[in-house]
Amino acid sequence: MTDKTSNQMWGGRFAAGPDAIMEAINASIGFDKRLAAQDIAGSRAHADMLAATGILSDSDAAAIKEGLLTVLSEIDDGRFVFSTALEDIHMNVEARLKQIVGEPAGRLHTARSRNDQVATDFKLWVRDQLDAAESGLLALMRALVGQAEAGADWVMPGFTHLQTAQPVTWGHHMLAYVEMFARDLSRVRDARARMNESPLGSAALAGTGFAIDRHMTAEALGFDRPTANSLDAVSDRDFALEFLSVASICAMHLSRFAEELVIWSSAQFRFVTLSDRFSTGSSIMPQKKNPDAAELIRAKIGRIFGANVALMTVMKGLPLAYSKDMQEDKEQVFDAADNLMLALAAMEGMVRDMSANREALEAAAASGFSTATDLADWLVRETGLPFREAHHATGALVALAEQRGCDLPDLTLEDMKGVHDAITEGVFDVLGVHNSVASRTSYGGTAPVRVLEQVTRWKETLG
Amino acid sequence: MTDKTSNQMWGGRFAAGPDAIMEAINASIGFDKRLAAQDIAGSRAHADMLAATGILSDSDAAAIKEGLLTVLSEIDDGRFVFSTALEDIHMNVEARLKQIVGEPAGRLHTARSRNDQVATDFKLWVRDQLDAAESGLLALMRALVGQAEAGADWVMPGFTHLQTAQPVTWGHHMLAYVEMFARDLSRVRDARARMNESPLGSAALAGTGFAIDRHMTAEALGFDRPTANSLDAVSDRDFALEFLSVASICAMHLSRFAEELVIWSSAQFRFVTLSDRFSTGSSIMPQKKNPDAAELIRAKIGRIFGANVALMTVMKGLPLAYSKDMQEDKEQVFDAADNLMLALAAMEGMVRDMSANREALEAAAASGFSTATDLADWLVRETGLPFREAHHATGALVALAEQRGCDLPDLTLEDMKGVHDAITEGVFDVLGVHNSVASRTSYGGTAPVRVLEQVTRWKETLG
Amino acid sequence: MTDKTSNQMWGGRFAAGPDAIMEAINASIGFDKRLAAQDIAGSRAHADMLAATGILSDSDAAAIKEGLLTVLSEIDDGRFVFSTALEDIHMNVEARLKQIVGEPAGRLHTARSRNDQVATDFKLWVRDQLDAAESGLLALMRALVGQAEAGADWVMPGFTHLQTAQPVTWGHHMLAYVEMFARDLSRVRDARARMNESPLGSAALAGTGFAIDRHMTAEALGFDRPTANSLDAVSDRDFALEFLSVASICAMHLSRFAEELVIWSSAQFRFVTLSDRFSTGSSIMPQKKNPDAAELIRAKIGRIFGANVALMTVMKGLPLAYSKDMQEDKEQVFDAADNLMLALAAMEGMVRDMSANREALEAAAASGFSTATDLADWLVRETGLPFREAHHATGALVALAEQRGCDLPDLTLEDMKGVHDAITEGVFDVLGVHNSVASRTSYGGTAPVRVLEQVTRWKETLG
Amino acid sequence: MTDKTSNQMWGGRFAAGPDAIMEAINASIGFDKRLAAQDIAGSRAHADMLAATGILSDSDAAAIKEGLLTVLSEIDDGRFVFSTALEDIHMNVEARLKQIVGEPAGRLHTARSRNDQVATDFKLWVRDQLDAAESGLLALMRALVGQAEAGADWVMPGFTHLQTAQPVTWGHHMLAYVEMFARDLSRVRDARARMNESPLGSAALAGTGFAIDRHMTAEALGFDRPTANSLDAVSDRDFALEFLSVASICAMHLSRFAEELVIWSSAQFRFVTLSDRFSTGSSIMPQKKNPDAAELIRAKIGRIFGANVALMTVMKGLPLAYSKDMQEDKEQVFDAADNLMLALAAMEGMVRDMSANREALEAAAASGFSTATDLADWLVRETGLPFREAHHATGALVALAEQRGCDLPDLTLEDMKGVHDAITEGVFDVLGVHNSVASRTSYGGTAPVRVLEQVTRWKETLG
Repeated sequence: MTDKTSNQMWGGRFAAGPDAIMEAINASIGFDKRLAAQDIAGSRAHADMLAATGILSDSDAAAIKEGLLTVLSEIDDGRFVFSTALEDIHMNVEARLKQIVGEPAGRLHTARSRNDQVATDFKLWVRDQLDAAESGLLALMRALVGQAEAGADWVMPGFTHLQTAQPVTWGHHMLAYVEMFARDLSRVRDARARMNESPLGSAALAGTGFAIDRHMTAEALGFDRPTANSLDAVSDRDFALEFLSVASICAMHLSRFAEELVIWSSAQFRFVTLSDRFSTGSSIMPQKKNPDAAELIRAKIGRIFGANVALMTVMKGLPLAYSKDMQEDKEQVFDAADNLMLALAAMEGMVRDMSANREALEAAAASGFSTATDLADWLVRETGLPFREAHHATGALVALAEQRGCDLPDLTLEDMKGVHDAITEGVFDVLGVHNSVASRTSYGGTAPVRVLEQVTRWKETLG
Repeated sequence: MTDKTSNQMWGGRFAAGPDAIMEAINASIGFDKRLAAQDIAGSRAHADMLAATGILSDSDAAAIKEGLLTVLSEIDDGRFVFSTALEDIHMNVEARLKQIVGEPAGRLHTARSRNDQVATDFKLWVRDQLDAAESGLLALMRALVGQAEAGADWVMPGFTHLQTAQPVTWGHHMLAYVEMFARDLSRVRDARARMNESPLGSAALAGTGFAIDRHMTAEALGFDRPTANSLDAVSDRDFALEFLSVASICAMHLSRFAEELVIWSSAQFRFVTLSDRFSTGSSIMPQKKNPDAAELIRAKIGRIFGANVALMTVMKGLPLAYSKDMQEDKEQVFDAADNLMLALAAMEGMVRDMSANREALEAAAASGFSTATDLADWLVRETGLPFREAHHATGALVALAEQRGCDLPDLTLEDMKGVHDAITEGVFDVLGVHNSVASRTSYGGTAPVRVLEQVTRWKETLG
Repeated sequence: MTDKTSNQMWGGRFAAGPDAIMEAINASIGFDKRLAAQDIAGSRAHADMLAATGILSDSDAAAIKEGLLTVLSEIDDGRFVFSTALEDIHMNVEARLKQIVGEPAGRLHTARSRNDQVATDFKLWVRDQLDAAESGLLALMRALVGQAEAGADWVMPGFTHLQTAQPVTWGHHMLAYVEMFARDLSRVRDARARMNESPLGSAALAGTGFAIDRHMTAEALGFDRPTANSLDAVSDRDFALEFLSVASICAMHLSRFAEELVIWSSAQFRFVTLSDRFSTGSSIMPQKKNPDAAELIRAKIGRIFGANVALMTVMKGLPLAYSKDMQEDKEQVFDAADNLMLALAAMEGMVRDMSANREALEAAAASGFSTATDLADWLVRETGLPFREAHHATGALVALAEQRGCDLPDLTLEDMKGVHDAITEGVFDVLGVHNSVASRTSYGGTAPVRVLEQVTRWKETLG
Repeated sequence: MTDKTSNQMWGGRFAAGPDAIMEAINASIGFDKRLAAQDIAGSRAHADMLAATGILSDSDAAAIKEGLLTVLSEIDDGRFVFSTALEDIHMNVEARLKQIVGEPAGRLHTARSRNDQVATDFKLWVRDQLDAAESGLLALMRALVGQAEAGADWVMPGFTHLQTAQPVTWGHHMLAYVEMFARDLSRVRDARARMNESPLGSAALAGTGFAIDRHMTAEALGFDRPTANSLDAVSDRDFALEFLSVASICAMHLSRFAEELVIWSSAQFRFVTLSDRFSTGSSIMPQKKNPDAAELIRAKIGRIFGANVALMTVMKGLPLAYSKDMQEDKEQVFDAADNLMLALAAMEGMVRDMSANREALEAAAASGFSTATDLADWLVRETGLPFREAHHATGALVALAEQRGCDLPDLTLEDMKGVHDAITEGVFDVLGVHNSVASRTSYGGTAPVRVLEQVTRWKETLG
């Protein structure tokens, strides 16, 4: 197959041949060849429908469908020669089909146009990515639940402002990310349900006078229904933008977790040890373990959200219906999808492989009077002090401990009574990090009993 | 009320008073006072729950609840003096409550912290905006359906590349935007359902040891359930980001329509006349009617999507749980919400007021051989020519008409037969713009009959 | 060359081989091979300097430099086999060099690290792009000046709000873009001057104890000087961000001009005819000429500014010095640079080829009482009326003309005197679009005489 | 002053009064009143020029100039009543001027329009911000140089991937930021020089027929020259976008330093102690010192770069000349400028106040075999081993030290010779962190001697 057929396609009306610049800026085949499988699936469904409605003969439809399979296998095998002069995947496939099946190929494009065709192809591709994101999220959530179950009662510092605030459990921290990724999953599913309408048969923009059956092609391609307005169908890129929005928020969650892993892997924190699989080392500093995968995941939000900005900027202020500007949609989504899936997979691998350094975590949790709020809450609960007064008393006790060079559980009951005489032996039940976390049994709280309940819930949900 | 109480609040541990720079960068009361009603509603629900669970006496709870109403009325009446030294709305309200009810005020903050409090307040505020967006979208959709019904059979050009491609109907074009705003509405509703979980009772980050009832406060505040993980609850700003994402896509739709209105209002197009309410004039050029509202609506995507970028950037790479960076969330959402609602309202007003210039629309639709595809489709349908060959014959007919200086319906049957002898009298049934649009009866097509079906569907849906 | 050498490079300390995910996320050779020429230039300069300072023997340096040329020719000829396991361009080149020259290859990396090496390579690449942008901008400016000279006195509407406001000249409009692109050029040059410092020799981050001569390598590579702080040198990506910022503003200018070309090409405006080279047609609608290149140029701001967002997001909050996140810098800049150059070239081609439709432009300029401000200004200038009163009188005259169904120059002197009796015959000298533009001779104004002065200035500047 | 005069201003042609929505979306006085001083300065320069060119009588000009000073003093004193119906600052000022000086006020607007007026006002405002940014940057750089001088030889870890890589000096690290802010300063100055052209006298878009002297007003307002093209002058917002770009890169630098301060303030790092002025505490956990200012500075890049996105999106695809969309420019720049100045001031205060914890820094630097590269470099330098072999030997020595539970300087010479017999006593000169940093004397390196040279250079530069 050569490029010579292209002039014919454009009807030969241009005196001047398209020169190199125009070809470079105009042709999309360099990237839209990734839509080949979707394009062929859409054309096969279209041919079936044209035959069922009598617009195409059964024999032509059969030849076309068979021919399209041949084209697909050529593409899959790497034998297909893509032509830039034929501009895009649609023209490349159709031109090759004509070589294979001859005249019937010229009947395939009846009652459709490239505008509804590309919208259909791209929607099918994005739908596949939403499904892939679902799988990736589920796998990552399972890995996190595994970590949460193993460490439901391991104590670690809960930070605010990267300062130790209160002890929490490892399991609780892992489940916080499960909640985030569960919201991502929910958004993925909503997006999939919303976008699952077939543009095919909207034609150039106005619909068609052929008595086609759009419900039939919609069903064949797994869509819930055909789109209800042909102008909108060829002008709409909401599904791509929503995918990018959803992917961006997910990438933000990944960046937060990755940031924690980078900090936790530092020599100063040593909260976790990442596996060699997801780190790189130095040939001369064996203890140096660079969290490369975590850093790269942290960075992925850049290109994913950058793609969101790119496409939103492209779509801003475009009049209906199709404008060529919209050709810029695919590369952004391709790149964002590839990188989201890669980041999810790498994060899942890291989570499965990483090991928490329990001693370091607990030691960090126990420093800095981290159970001061437990003491204050005990004072409110057991002695009836108003919250603000209890805090005042606690401040005095912490100051005393600081002065003594010890932590709160190391003060004697007499020390305590010296500050507030309603304090009893019972106070020691909430001091110490294990007592602290065990006491926080409010719904959603960090107590191991609550964490294990959530683990059970998630295991049921995730299967 | 003076600012002097603030040092006391911070426990007096800072040797140096906060200087002007720190106060300027740190205090949020300048903007988070917009959360006053939500803050007070949250505190009232919290007081009720503390009483129901026996943590607070009924009389204290009653005093607090009454006092909070007083504070609210002071704020509503503009009598409240906000203090920057008290930093934020929570401290401002609590300090004033203490002046009003005394000691019980100090018990209100039991079993919560500012972290879950601000998350609750902000969620309630965003939820109100989602409801407002729903109302705004519904009103705009109704206005568009009104235009669509009136002009279901008015003919106008359907553009690709801003070049006339095929005739469409005014009603069809209006309904394209109804589809877009319906997807926006669907996203708004999904976002509302997803975010409707109560963070209250998550405390600083770890939950609490008080035997609180988070389901009770959740229900009182209209939430579907409490959040399931306290660390996540105070770290999460997905609801704000999802609001901004949804608002951005909606603003993109508005920008596209606004662009069309600006172009359509030009002297060259004259497709619509905007009302004086939404235009500005020139004191010396009376025919000049500047589509200011449309231009401003077109621009709103800038600040709304800019806010999305801003908050996404803030959240990127933040470790759990609360970091002060997150204080930057509110101004972005406030500004984006205000401008989205304003843009929706202005667009609705413009749509209700605008009048289509039917003659100009039809004249434009009829120029440029806009029914050439109808002719080609007729050839395929009635004579069995393959699509690509039919296009070739049509090209020849158009060239003939161009040469004759007439349009396609003005050619004689002989002219036509000279190009392809299978052409019959019946061809004239699809030429002419009214015939063209009437023929495009595929589902979702531009035919008036299809448009009216969709109008009926939307009127039922929109009530 | 096989991938088996890679384990050796990493010192073989990893028990587990890097699996597919890690390789996929970690390796940069897929894109940084575009830096091959820069990498080899940098290494050759480094080898020269090592020899000059006695760190490397002359014979080793000679072998290395010769070997590097061999590697470069293999890459240029497409014979080089890139290895993903060797991760990046630096390791790929060095590994191949070792095969060619043996032991001396192991001495090349003395007194440098991959951190300063990649910063140097990437800076050299970006510097080339700034030079390419300069060429592209100059060519485009020359094309615009050509249009301006040809049409210095062609009259067209000057729009505000896309409404005709006052007549202007075609040349004046073209020169407005020359001003914009001249600012872009100025920014390009400032960016180039600012970034032209050599990171080479900064080593991993701390500098080196070898007695290297960084000024020598800086000079050899065309840098103005070495960077003054090694930590900054390996952490800095300002040069990439500034390139993206500059490119984004330029792309914004291109989008504005492209928008005008799309609108001007519409059947309603017909202000310009684009050449067939930069449009696409329809096989059946010969008059339809889609301004594809203009639309694609209009869209390019999306991906270019998206890349800016992407890299800014990546860099946000990164601690010093090198973090792996920064590996995400290159693809963004590569894509933005490719697309900026393509857009500049396509715009230059379009500008050279396009022809203004002088009659349509003048007719549009003459409609809508576009010289009303000329009349008002005349009243102020010649009769001494205050500006605001003159506007009032003009409004009355326009209303009169509108009532008569004529334009301002068609009113009689009596008509005029009826509104304001100080009006004399002289008023007709400023009415009519040619009089109007000729009168606007203030510096920077639209008068042909002013336009030609600017054309002369630009021709001298642009050579 | 009431709002009733507004209808008159618009020439009374609108049958319907502008309703609340239109007023809300259209009026800019709510924010552009910040341009009052610039507006009045511009008008005074314009009046002077009109008098000098004989367009305005000297007495009228004097009355106008005096009246404008009165208006300015009313605004400064808070006595001015801004009217939304008068839309913008220009109309508000002019209407009040008319009340004060009567008829001459109506002559001020001769030979200008709101389009060139707002461009002039806004440019003057942005120019002031560039000057403020220069001051803020200089102050911050001085603070950093102060830290660098004090700690030119304090040893701390140099990180890559947040893993200790090599020892560096505190002074070197501080100077890395001086380099970044120096580039910001350079960008600020370039932006100021580029934008310093006066739009005044460009009138609505076409220039004017009055014989004005634009060079005179340009000079009076401190501009270098008038703009050369009136269409460009009223359409251009490059100066705002360039300010936002420059501010964004600066904010990125601030975010990186802020991130380091947050991490360094953690209990795990304890590298620095921030002053109480720029932290907040907990009333019950006295050791907890939240780095609020650092976190807020880290976040500021969000809104500053968000503003950049917002304005870039607004400008994308706007045809010439003025469109109302451009009214959205000011709020973005106002907010970004306010926050940049605040962040610079807060960072300067924090840097001045913070104290490095020298022991913690040095201890961290000395751990983890951080001088392994020094050992490898010594082997290359003194024994002639190729770089890659030297690294292999170093790896073996590190492994030996790790096995012995000691660091590199603690190995005996015999231990060393056991690995490579060319090692001599001299090796100990480069082991140990002080030896390491002292040895890195390459230009830009971390050696105290190099740091002090740079400190001297900067003190001379910064004055």
